[in-house]
Amino acid sequence: MIMSIITLLTDFGTEDEYVGLMKGVILTINPRATIVDITHRIGSQDLTQAAFTIHASYRYFPAGSVHLVVVDPGVGTSRDLLALEMRKHFFIAPDNGILTLLLADDDYTSLVRLTNSDFFLKPVSKTFHGRDIFAPVGAYLSQGVAISKLGPEMDPNEAIRLADLQARMLENGEIIGKIIAIDHFGNLISNVEIRQLTRYSQTGSLSSLKIQIGSHVIHGLSETYENVGSSTPLALVGSRGYLEIAVNCGNAARALKARRGDVVRVAI
Amino acid sequence: MIMSIITLLTDFGTEDEYVGLMKGVILTINPRATIVDITHRIGSQDLTQAAFTIHASYRYFPAGSVHLVVVDPGVGTSRDLLALEMRKHFFIAPDNGILTLLLADDDYTSLVRLTNSDFFLKPVSKTFHGRDIFAPVGAYLSQGVAISKLGPEMDPNEAIRLADLQARMLENGEIIGKIIAIDHFGNLISNVEIRQLTRYSQTGSLSSLKIQIGSHVIHGLSETYENVGSSTPLALVGSRGYLEIAVNCGNAARALKARRGDVVRVAI
Amino acid sequence: MIMSIITLLTDFGTEDEYVGLMKGVILTINPRATIVDITHRIGSQDLTQAAFTIHASYRYFPAGSVHLVVVDPGVGTSRDLLALEMRKHFFIAPDNGILTLLLADDDYTSLVRLTNSDFFLKPVSKTFHGRDIFAPVGAYLSQGVAISKLGPEMDPNEAIRLADLQARMLENGEIIGKIIAIDHFGNLISNVEIRQLTRYSQTGSLSSLKIQIGSHVIHGLSETYENVGSSTPLALVGSRGYLEIAVNCGNAARALKARRGDVVRVAI
Repeated sequence: MIMSIITLLTDFGTEDEYVGLMKGVILTINPRATIVDITHRIGSQDLTQAAFTIHASYRYFPAGSVHLVVVDPGVGTSRDLLALEMRKHFFIAPDNGILTLLLADDDYTSLVRLTNSDFFLKPVSKTFHGRDIFAPVGAYLSQGVAISKLGPEMDPNEAIRLADLQARMLENGEIIGKIIAIDHFGNLISNVEIRQLTRYSQTGSLSSLKIQIGSHVIHGLSETYENVGSSTPLALVGSRGYLEIAVNCGNAARALKARRGDVVRVAI
Repeated sequence: MIMSIITLLTDFGTEDEYVGLMKGVILTINPRATIVDITHRIGSQDLTQAAFTIHASYRYFPAGSVHLVVVDPGVGTSRDLLALEMRKHFFIAPDNGILTLLLADDDYTSLVRLTNSDFFLKPVSKTFHGRDIFAPVGAYLSQGVAISKLGPEMDPNEAIRLADLQARMLENGEIIGKIIAIDHFGNLISNVEIRQLTRYSQTGSLSSLKIQIGSHVIHGLSETYENVGSSTPLALVGSRGYLEIAVNCGNAARALKARRGDVVRVAI
Repeated sequence: MIMSIITLLTDFGTEDEYVGLMKGVILTINPRATIVDITHRIGSQDLTQAAFTIHASYRYFPAGSVHLVVVDPGVGTSRDLLALEMRKHFFIAPDNGILTLLLADDDYTSLVRLTNSDFFLKPVSKTFHGRDIFAPVGAYLSQGVAISKLGPEMDPNEAIRLADLQARMLENGEIIGKIIAIDHFGNLISNVEIRQLTRYSQTGSLSSLKIQIGSHVIHGLSETYENVGSSTPLALVGSRGYLEIAVNCGNAARALKARRGDVVRVAI
């Protein structure tokens, strides 16, 4: 039996039948597919959040998984759709920058434009390519159809990239990042990566870090949420490998009145 | 292996364990069932929305699928439960009008009242037939139990129908419909069907259509969301085959202060 | 084929990728696992609600199921993680009282501390044991790994228990309970069990019960939601076997301005 896992990452929400229909189309083509929702609550048309979430998530799924990333404000226009094979995972996404972090890892096997409509559901609507293109193409990939059948190979340098995704390191050693996502618990997830913090770590100075968000300054990194008193803000390296700001037994977004996009500064 | 897909369409929400328990009951009877959530966020006891959603959704699932439609304000009272076989799909629903649009297609194979309690979970509670009747009956159907075993055949004319579901065409050519659902993106989904619009299309006048909702008038149909400028309301034929009103890069429900049930008028 | 059902009960919400990653880890180890969400919307760190929900839910799943109960404010601290085998079901949970009602049934087969890191995902993060410990351990259990391999047996009397979970019966016959959960429909679910009501039932006096919540008094038990007029509060024994307060065609939480934790008094 071919293992065939298909994941879904969308901004569709769960109020409507949209996600269910994608699953129906997949199972009609490949009844043995195992379908997993990563999340359907990416902020509406938030390409940045989608780019970080798929990059942080795919590695926890088995080799051979097919990941459908449907955050697609340009649906129905002339934007391209892409299929990427990388580290034995497959990704289908619009050519709108969602794949930026994956492509930046520079370890791809194949990247094609989805032009072969043999694998589409007909008629293709103008407004729901998740159902009419992503789902059937993903189902066929999960059955072992070769990515080269889906369309012509393209140069990854021609794919659209999002700018300013990663936190910047200034010459004075400061790191300037931003809040990429706020999770269910109100934790603030930044785009400052653990490997950007290690330059401080090597000098043994992680405990003297200053993390600033808005008018709040947090001193040092904690290991767990309970490292500080209740209701106190703290910073830690989260499970994604990025700097997070949390409040022990509380909601950091509310306590710090923080929002997605807010600037985070890290310095000694 | 028998393919056995069971879909769930309810107004249960996802806060509680209710949907999970239905799945547990199904898997206890048929461990090979593949269960798909269509949505659990039908408006509380909104029979109209449920009727449109199941009618627009079932055809995307494989033949042989069993669809459990549990929007059931009368649970525990003397209302009947029905099982419908139609176009190789099975539907289980209360006799409260949810099946109106399916029955209106007038293409059914069998319609029975669920009276055979051999297929129920015992004891049957008064308040959760989703768990105690829908789930086990659906699981048995998915295993190949004949619908005729579930109870006596009934005349579809005796089933309860919802009135005024479909948009009306006036003698002057106007179409009077209403907003059936507002999706996650704030798009307004009406009950005006594409085939009701084709009378205009044949005369080549789709571009001169006037679509009125509240005090707003939209001229012509768009092909995609990006056919108009940002923040501008537009009308298009949505992925369900019904007229939808949207705002490019925006939320039509908020922008137009529209609500479910609002009247939509279409005229030349 | 070994039947391998794994259920998830968490306070993670569905905004983030957290639940999806747990599923990815499970399927990487056991591709044949069937994963069912009980709910991910337990109130943030609400151990009481989690304890009642898992106790009311597990019995609807097949023998052999593995239940991951991840409501874990102490993640990353020195709190223990437990694996419980009971009535042919397996439970993995923090040692924080979530298992109180299961242990109170006093019918366990085995209880161990999870110390064998051979079954963990490495490196184990400090903040996401759902992904790094619960998911892989659950996947191995679902494949038939013996619970005794996971760590040393412990005395259930040493497990942390939540106090005051169950409603109290006073000497004058009154029952003092509280609202444990408010469901999607606004129904108020108390911790007063049906077996605590049967002492009244035996004397034939269920119809003369007085149920008090806040300043509202409800007389007698109803059988269904429609037993009283529209908008009238009523009390009934819900599908969980606990006393519930509802409003016919309405939302009891809003109508009675009730909240989780509110006291419920039952008397003749």
